[in-house]
Amino acid sequence: MKIGVFTVLYDDKPLEEVAAYASGLGYEMVELAAWKGSNHIDIDEVLKGNTKDLKETLNKYNLEISALSNHLEGQLVLGPLDESTDDWAPSKDPEEKVKYGMKRMKDTARAAAELGVPVVVGFTGSPVWGQWYIFPPKNEEMYEKGWELFAERWNEILDTFKEVGVKFALEVHPTEIAYNIETSEKALEVLAHRKEFGFNFDPSHFIWQMIDPVIFIKKFGDRIYHAHAKDSELQEDEVSRSGVIPTGGWMRPNRGFRFRIPGWGQVNWRRVMTALLTVRYDYVLSYEHEDPVMSREDGCEKTIEYLRPLIIKKPLEEVWW
Amino acid sequence: MKIGVFTVLYDDKPLEEVAAYASGLGYEMVELAAWKGSNHIDIDEVLKGNTKDLKETLNKYNLEISALSNHLEGQLVLGPLDESTDDWAPSKDPEEKVKYGMKRMKDTARAAAELGVPVVVGFTGSPVWGQWYIFPPKNEEMYEKGWELFAERWNEILDTFKEVGVKFALEVHPTEIAYNIETSEKALEVLAHRKEFGFNFDPSHFIWQMIDPVIFIKKFGDRIYHAHAKDSELQEDEVSRSGVIPTGGWMRPNRGFRFRIPGWGQVNWRRVMTALLTVRYDYVLSYEHEDPVMSREDGCEKTIEYLRPLIIKKPLEEVWW
Amino acid sequence: MKIGVFTVLYDDKPLEEVAAYASGLGYEMVELAAWKGSNHIDIDEVLKGNTKDLKETLNKYNLEISALSNHLEGQLVLGPLDESTDDWAPSKDPEEKVKYGMKRMKDTARAAAELGVPVVVGFTGSPVWGQWYIFPPKNEEMYEKGWELFAERWNEILDTFKEVGVKFALEVHPTEIAYNIETSEKALEVLAHRKEFGFNFDPSHFIWQMIDPVIFIKKFGDRIYHAHAKDSELQEDEVSRSGVIPTGGWMRPNRGFRFRIPGWGQVNWRRVMTALLTVRYDYVLSYEHEDPVMSREDGCEKTIEYLRPLIIKKPLEEVWW
Amino acid sequence: MKIGVFTVLYDDKPLEEVAAYASGLGYEMVELAAWKGSNHIDIDEVLKGNTKDLKETLNKYNLEISALSNHLEGQLVLGPLDESTDDWAPSKDPEEKVKYGMKRMKDTARAAAELGVPVVVGFTGSPVWGQWYIFPPKNEEMYEKGWELFAERWNEILDTFKEVGVKFALEVHPTEIAYNIETSEKALEVLAHRKEFGFNFDPSHFIWQMIDPVIFIKKFGDRIYHAHAKDSELQEDEVSRSGVIPTGGWMRPNRGFRFRIPGWGQVNWRRVMTALLTVRYDYVLSYEHEDPVMSREDGCEKTIEYLRPLIIKKPLEEVWW
Amino acid sequence: MKIGVFTVLYDDKPLEEVAAYASGLGYEMVELAAWKGSNHIDIDEVLKGNTKDLKETLNKYNLEISALSNHLEGQLVLGPLDESTDDWAPSKDPEEKVKYGMKRMKDTARAAAELGVPVVVGFTGSPVWGQWYIFPPKNEEMYEKGWELFAERWNEILDTFKEVGVKFALEVHPTEIAYNIETSEKALEVLAHRKEFGFNFDPSHFIWQMIDPVIFIKKFGDRIYHAHAKDSELQEDEVSRSGVIPTGGWMRPNRGFRFRIPGWGQVNWRRVMTALLTVRYDYVLSYEHEDPVMSREDGCEKTIEYLRPLIIKKPLEEVWW
Amino acid sequence: MKIGVFTVLYDDKPLEEVAAYASGLGYEMVELAAWKGSNHIDIDEVLKGNTKDLKETLNKYNLEISALSNHLEGQLVLGPLDESTDDWAPSKDPEEKVKYGMKRMKDTARAAAELGVPVVVGFTGSPVWGQWYIFPPKNEEMYEKGWELFAERWNEILDTFKEVGVKFALEVHPTEIAYNIETSEKALEVLAHRKEFGFNFDPSHFIWQMIDPVIFIKKFGDRIYHAHAKDSELQEDEVSRSGVIPTGGWMRPNRGFRFRIPGWGQVNWRRVMTALLTVRYDYVLSYEHEDPVMSREDGCEKTIEYLRPLIIKKPLEEVWW
Repeated sequence: MKIGVFTVLYDDKPLEEVAAYASGLGYEMVELAAWKGSNHIDIDEVLKGNTKDLKETLNKYNLEISALSNHLEGQLVLGPLDESTDDWAPSKDPEEKVKYGMKRMKDTARAAAELGVPVVVGFTGSPVWGQWYIFPPKNEEMYEKGWELFAERWNEILDTFKEVGVKFALEVHPTEIAYNIETSEKALEVLAHRKEFGFNFDPSHFIWQMIDPVIFIKKFGDRIYHAHAKDSELQEDEVSRSGVIPTGGWMRPNRGFRFRIPGWGQVNWRRVMTALLTVRYDYVLSYEHEDPVMSREDGCEKTIEYLRPLIIKKPLEEVWW
Repeated sequence: MKIGVFTVLYDDKPLEEVAAYASGLGYEMVELAAWKGSNHIDIDEVLKGNTKDLKETLNKYNLEISALSNHLEGQLVLGPLDESTDDWAPSKDPEEKVKYGMKRMKDTARAAAELGVPVVVGFTGSPVWGQWYIFPPKNEEMYEKGWELFAERWNEILDTFKEVGVKFALEVHPTEIAYNIETSEKALEVLAHRKEFGFNFDPSHFIWQMIDPVIFIKKFGDRIYHAHAKDSELQEDEVSRSGVIPTGGWMRPNRGFRFRIPGWGQVNWRRVMTALLTVRYDYVLSYEHEDPVMSREDGCEKTIEYLRPLIIKKPLEEVWW
Repeated sequence: MKIGVFTVLYDDKPLEEVAAYASGLGYEMVELAAWKGSNHIDIDEVLKGNTKDLKETLNKYNLEISALSNHLEGQLVLGPLDESTDDWAPSKDPEEKVKYGMKRMKDTARAAAELGVPVVVGFTGSPVWGQWYIFPPKNEEMYEKGWELFAERWNEILDTFKEVGVKFALEVHPTEIAYNIETSEKALEVLAHRKEFGFNFDPSHFIWQMIDPVIFIKKFGDRIYHAHAKDSELQEDEVSRSGVIPTGGWMRPNRGFRFRIPGWGQVNWRRVMTALLTVRYDYVLSYEHEDPVMSREDGCEKTIEYLRPLIIKKPLEEVWW
Repeated sequence: MKIGVFTVLYDDKPLEEVAAYASGLGYEMVELAAWKGSNHIDIDEVLKGNTKDLKETLNKYNLEISALSNHLEGQLVLGPLDESTDDWAPSKDPEEKVKYGMKRMKDTARAAAELGVPVVVGFTGSPVWGQWYIFPPKNEEMYEKGWELFAERWNEILDTFKEVGVKFALEVHPTEIAYNIETSEKALEVLAHRKEFGFNFDPSHFIWQMIDPVIFIKKFGDRIYHAHAKDSELQEDEVSRSGVIPTGGWMRPNRGFRFRIPGWGQVNWRRVMTALLTVRYDYVLSYEHEDPVMSREDGCEKTIEYLRPLIIKKPLEEVWW
Repeated sequence: MKIGVFTVLYDDKPLEEVAAYASGLGYEMVELAAWKGSNHIDIDEVLKGNTKDLKETLNKYNLEISALSNHLEGQLVLGPLDESTDDWAPSKDPEEKVKYGMKRMKDTARAAAELGVPVVVGFTGSPVWGQWYIFPPKNEEMYEKGWELFAERWNEILDTFKEVGVKFALEVHPTEIAYNIETSEKALEVLAHRKEFGFNFDPSHFIWQMIDPVIFIKKFGDRIYHAHAKDSELQEDEVSRSGVIPTGGWMRPNRGFRFRIPGWGQVNWRRVMTALLTVRYDYVLSYEHEDPVMSREDGCEKTIEYLRPLIIKKPLEEVWW
Repeated sequence: MKIGVFTVLYDDKPLEEVAAYASGLGYEMVELAAWKGSNHIDIDEVLKGNTKDLKETLNKYNLEISALSNHLEGQLVLGPLDESTDDWAPSKDPEEKVKYGMKRMKDTARAAAELGVPVVVGFTGSPVWGQWYIFPPKNEEMYEKGWELFAERWNEILDTFKEVGVKFALEVHPTEIAYNIETSEKALEVLAHRKEFGFNFDPSHFIWQMIDPVIFIKKFGDRIYHAHAKDSELQEDEVSRSGVIPTGGWMRPNRGFRFRIPGWGQVNWRRVMTALLTVRYDYVLSYEHEDPVMSREDGCEKTIEYLRPLIIKKPLEEVWW
C-alpha cells in the first residue's frame, strides 16, 4: 500500500513545488485533477503527446500518478444541469453540457492511458439525487428511471475506457448516482458488472449515513480501484441540533457533520486497513483535504504521520498454531 | 392534550365509517386531508357554505377537527415542479402549478376559518431540497436564494391566513424548505417571525438525522401549532449496510430507515411528552400511519393504547418539598 | 399469531389442571413434552390410538397442541453419550443410547401425526459441542466430521417425519449441532435443505452470543416452524466479572448470564415481532419458563400480559401515501 | 411487596382526604411525615396516647403505615447548622439545634413504637458534605473526623430505637452522611453493624452518580428496611452543558439532572424489582413525588399503574428443568 | 500553541533543575506557583524588584512564564474559612483570612506585571460550594447570595488586576464559585463581563460531571486566558459501585473517578484541540500532574509525547473545493 | 516492565535468527515453547545439562527467558483425551496420555529450574470444558467433579514445581479448567492457594466473554506470574450474525471473534497497563501472534512500537498537591 496525495489542494502552486513538498514528507503517489483549468495537468496537451515535462517532474521526486481525477466534468454527464454546474461547462445548455461532459471523460481516460495511469477517479453526476426521499411518491418511479440514463450515457463512456485499457473509479458520494452500498450494487448491476467500472473508496461519506465502511470493502473488494484517505466527524456537541445533513458552507463551525483528515474523525482506520488487506487491496491511499479546521500543511504532515504506522505490509498466509 | 388521527389512512372509506371507528377506539380529534380528491372533505364545497353534513357527522361521534392538512398542493408553491408533482396539479406547466398551489393553500385557510378550525398543516415545497449537500460549491449560493423565493410566495399566502385568522403549521420534513432545526430557524427569520407561521412537530423525521426532538420542542415551543404522533426506526441489522437515506419503496423490508407507529421506533416518547408539557403545548397528538409493517387497524389500536398512559394531564405548579 | 405455553413447567400437576389454568389466563396453545416420563402425554399410548382423553381435555379448554417436544431423547441421537445423558436412556451403552434415541424421535413424529400436530420440537444432540473453540487445532477437523454423523442419523429420522407428514423444528441452542446462525446454515446445507427440517426460534440463546435474533428470522424465515417466548439477561452488574459463559447452577444469583421471561431480559421484542411478521411467521409463541427469579405463576401471568399487546394482527398490504 | 405513598405531597389536605384518594387508586400503605408541623400526624399527641383517630382513619381505607419519616429534624443532628436549617429548629444556636434534633428523632422512634410501626425513615445530617471533593487536601482528614461525630450522636439516638424496638432507615442521599455505596458501607462499619440502623433504598439518588442501584441492593440486602419509588433523569439534551450537579431550583427546565416518577427516568425498574426479590425484600415501595414536571395527580395515577405489573409475587424456589 | 508545565509538581527541587529537565523534554513554558512557600518564586521578592535570577534561569533554558498561579491563597477570599484552609493563612480568624487572601491575590497580579506575565491563574474560593444540592430548600436562596459576596470581594481584587494590566483566569473547578458551564456564565454575568476576568480551561473537571469540554470552549472562547493539560477517568470497573463523587485520598485505587495525564483518561483531545483552534486560542497547554498512578517523570515524558502531534499549527483560512 | 516475544511464531527458523531479529526490534525477553518438537529448546537436553549454546545465543542478543511454555503437553493431564490431542502424545491410550503429560510438565519445571527461569506457562487441560452449559442438568454435577481430578493430578505436578522452586502460570483460556474469573477463583481454592500456582494473564480471551481484564488483574494481582500481549476483536460487522463463539478455522475472515495484535482489537491497553502497575506487576508482556490478518513481521514490529510508549516506568509514590 502506498500513501499518495490528491494535489488539487495546492492547485495554486506549480506542480513541481507541490511534488517537492509531498515527496519530502514521504508521499509516494499523486492524484492529479484532470478537469479544464487544473494547474497540474492539461489533458489536451497530454493527448497531443506533451507528457515529458510532467513525467520528468514526477520522476525527479520519485512520485507516480495514482489516478487522473475528474469530479467536475463527470458531473455534467448526468447533471444536475442547472446553474450549479455552469462554471465547469462551456455552455448553459443542458444538452451541450452532457455532450461536453461525455467527451471530457473519454479524453481523461485517453490521457490516463497516454501516461500509463491505470485509473480515472471521478463523479458520474445524477439526474435524481434530490429524489432519494420517497415523497412525493412519484420520486420512487423517477429514481428508477435515473438508472437507465446512467447506463446509457456511461456505457458509451466506458467503451472508451475499455478501448484504452483504463478503469473508472466512481467516488461513492452523495449527489452522485451511487452514494451508499445499495446504490453501488445497483450501479454495478445496471452496467452488467463490466470490469471498467469500479469504485473510489472514501469512508468519509459513509459516517453520517451510519454505513459501516468495512461492509463496503468486503462487498466490493475487487471493485475498489482507488481509495481516498479522508475522515469525517459528527460533532457530538452539535449533531443533536444541526443533524447529519446541515446546509451552509463547509467553514461554518457549528455543523453537525463535517470532513476531517484521517485520525481526527470517526472512521476506525484500523478496521478499514484490516479490511482492505483482507480483500487484498494494495494500491494507494490518496489523501484528500477537505478539513474545514486545519491548514493544508497541518493536514499533509499529520496524515502521513498517522497512516504510515497503520499500513500492514503483508497478510498472514497460514496459521501455525 | 388530545389524541387525534389523520384520517387520510382510511381515505378509501367514507368519513362516517372512519369517524365511528376512530371514536370507538377513543380518538378525540381528526385531521382531514384537504387536497383535491380527498374523500373526507371537499373544501370547495365548504367555501360554498356546505358544512352541515360534515359537522353533523363529527358531532355525532364527538370528534373535533384538529387541522385541515394540505401536504400535496402546498408542495406546488415551491416545487419540485418536475413530473414528480404532476399528479396533483391541473397542468404540467411550472408557472401554472405555482399559481394553482398558492390559490389552493389560501382556499384551505379560508375553509378552515369557515369550519372554525384554527390550524392548517402542510408542506411548503422547496426549490432547493437536493442542494443541501455542498457539492458542487454553487449549491451553497443557490440554497441561499431559495429562501427569498420562499418568503415571497409564502408571505402572500400567509397574508390570507392572517385575514381569516388561521395558522399555518409547516411539517418540518425532508424535501421541504425546513427539515431540521437550523432550517426551521431560518424559515422563521426570513418570514420576520410572523405569527401565522409555525410548525407541525413530527419527531419521526428527526431520528435518522440524529436530531433530538426535545431540542426542537424547547426551541420552538410557542411555534408548535400541531403535532403528529409518528415514530421511526433505524433498523439495527440493516442500517450499517443500507444507511440512513435508502432509496426505493417504503415496503422494502431491508431499508436502514423506516417509519413506525409510536412506541415501535426510536423516539423517546416520555422525553417528548415531558418537553411538550414544559413548553405548555396542549393541543393534539395526531396519529399518522406510515408504518410499512403493520395494518392500519393494528396501528389505530396500538397507538392510542400506547399514548394514552403517557399523557400528563397537568403540570406541577410549585415545589413543596 | 397465537400464544402458547410449554406445559413442562407444570409437569408435577395433571394436564387438566394445567390446561384450565393456562386457558384461564388466555393461552391458546400448549406444547407438550413427549419424552418418557412426561406427565402430560405418553406417546406410546398415543401410538396405540389412545388419544381420546387428551383431545377431550384440551378441547374442553379450547387449547390446541402447537408441538410435541422432545429435547431429551433427541440428544441421545448424537450425544453426548457419557453419563450426562444416562438418566434419559434405558442403558449406559452409547450404541444403545443412539438406537433408542432414534426410535423415540421417530415415534414422536408418529404420535404427532396421530394427533394431527404438525411439528415436533427438539434437540439433535451433538458429538462435537465442546470443540467449537479452535484449540487444539485438531478440533476444527473433528468439528467438520461431526456434520457427517448428523446428516447420516438425522436423515434416517427425517425420512419417518416425511412419511407421516410432520416437521422437525430444532431448537437452535448451545450443546446442539446448530447453536448460532452459521451452524444453522450448515445444518440446512448438509441435509440438502429437505423441508422436514427447520427450526424452533428461541431468541434467549442468542443474547449472550451477541447475535441479533432479527438476522436469524430474516435469514430462515420459511424454516421457522415453531417459536419459544423466552428472554435472557446479561446482568449488567455481574457480567464484567462472571462473563457470558458462567458455570454452576441456574439459581446462582451472580451469574453473568441467565434466562428471563419475555420483557425482563434484553431481547427487543418489538423488533422480533416485526421481523416475524415480515417473514409471515404466523403460528405460535410458546412460553417456556427458565427464569431463575420468578415463580411459575408470575411467569405465566406476566408473559401473556406482556406479549399480547405486541402481537401484530395483520401486515400492511400496500402503501397509500 | 406493597405499594405505598409518602403522603407529604398532599400535606395541604387532611389525611382522610388523602387516604381516601390513595386507597381508591390502589395504594396499600402510607408513609407519614413526622416532623413538627406535619398536617398528617403530630407525634407529640401520639406520645400522649392520642392515636385513635389516626388509626380509625387509616383502617377505614385499609391502609397501614409503612414508616414515620423525619428527614428535616434528622438533619439537625449533624447539620449543616447554618441558616439552611433554621426553619426547622426552635433556635438558630447550633448546640440547641443538635439537642433538639436528637430529641425529636428519639421521639419519632417512640411514636412509631406506640403506633406499631416498625421503621422510621430519615436523614442523619452531615457535618462534612461539602468536603467530599479532595481539595483543599485538609478535606480528606476532616471528612474522616465527621464519622466519629456521626457515631457518637447517632449511637445515642439508636439506643432509644433499640429500647422501643424500632429500626432507623437512613435515606442514602447527597448532603447526608451516607450518599453512595462506599459511604453506606462506612456508616455500617462505624456503627459496628448494629441492627437498628439500615437504609431507605431510593434509586433516584444513584443515577447521576452513575451508581448501579442493583449493586446497592445486593450488598445491603438485609439492611434495606424501607424503599422509595422514585426515578431520576439525566436530560440528554441538557446534561452536556448543565452537568450532573446543577444549581438553582427544581423547576428550572434546563437542568442536567432532575427527579421523575417511576418509569419516566433512567432507573431500570425490572432489574431493581428482580434484585429486591433476590435479597428477599418484601415490604413496601413508597412513592415519593419530586417530579418537577407532572402534577401530583398525574404522579399518583401513573406510578401505581406503572409499578403494579412489575411486582413479582413469589420467587422461584427450585429449578425443575 | 505552546506546551508548558506547572512546575509545582517538582516544588521539592530547585527551579533551575526543573527548568533544565522540562526544557530538555521540549516544554516551552512554565507556570509557577505563587503562593507563600513556593520553592520556585517568592512574589514578595519580585515586588521588591528582585527578578534577575529568575529571569536568567528561565532565559537560559528558553522558557517563558505562562502564568503565576495562586490556587491556595485565592481560596481564602471566599473560603471555606474553617480548618480546611488554616494551613495557608497566617491566622485562623475568618476575617483575617479574607483580608490576607485579598492582599495576596493583588500582590500576585502585581508580581505578574513586574515579570511581564499576562495571566494569573487561581481559585476564588466559594462560600456555598456544599450547597449546590437543592436540599435543604434554603440552599437555593443561600446559593444565590453567595454570588453577591463573590462580586464584592473579587471586583475589588480585579481593580488591581486592571491597574497593572494582568488578567485573572479562574480554574473552573469543584469547590470554587464556578465549577461548570452554568456557574461560569453566572460568574461573568455578576462581574458585568469585565475583561480582567476569564478562565483557566481544564477539561479534567468536566468529565465526571458529564459536561462536554467542547461546549465550554465554544461558549467562552474569548475568555479562556490559560489552559491546563489534564485528563480524568471514570474507572469502568469501579464507577458503578464508587460513583462519580468518591471520598478519601487520591491514592485510593478503587475510586470511581480520578485524574490522569493527557491521553490516559476520557477527554477526547482531538476534539478539544480542534475547538481551541476554532476559537483561536493560541497560548499554552500547561501540564499539571495529579495522576495517582504514574510517577512525575512518566507524566512529563508521556504528556509532551502525546500532545505534540495533536497541535494544529495553523487554521484553514478558506475553502478551495 | 519488559517486552518479550513468544518465539513459537518463528519455530520454523533457528533460535539464533529469531533472537537476532527480536532483539534488533527491541524485545528484551523470549518465551520458549518447551514441548517435544520445539525447534528452540529441547528440555531433555537441558535436563542433561546441555544449556550452554542456548545461554550463549541469548546472551549474545541480551535476551532473557521469561518463561518456558508448555501448552500442548499440559493439556494431556486432564484431556480432552480423544483424538484431538493424539498428535502431541506418544500413544492414543488415555491413561498413557495422562501419565506422559504429567511427566512432561514436571520435566518442564525441572528444565526451567536448570536454566534459572522462574516461571512455566501452560495449560492444564480440562475433562469438562464442553459442560459449562447447564444442559443437560447432569452437566452441573459433572462439572463439579472435574475440579477434584484437577486438584489430584495438578497437586502432584505442583509438588515438583515446589521442589525446584519454579512457578506454574496457567493461561486462563477456554478449553482449560479455568477460563474466566470465577473458574480462576475456584482453581485457586481447590488447590488451597498454594503459591506454586498462578496465572498467565492474557486479555484476549476475556473480550468475547465480556469480562473486564482489569477486574481480573485487581483480583489476582499477586498471582499473575506472566502476561501475554495479545488483543482480540469482535468484528462489528460480523458479530451480530456470527456470534462470539464461531466455529471453523482462524483464517475464516467473517468470524464474529478473532485474535489481533495489541492495539488492533478491543482491549483498552491503557487501562490494562494502569491496573498492572497498580498491583505492582513488573515482569514481562510477552507478545504472542495469533492475528489471522497480519504477517508475523508486521506483528513483531507493530506490537513493540505500540506497547513501548504505554509502559509506565514508575508508580506515583505519594501525593504532593
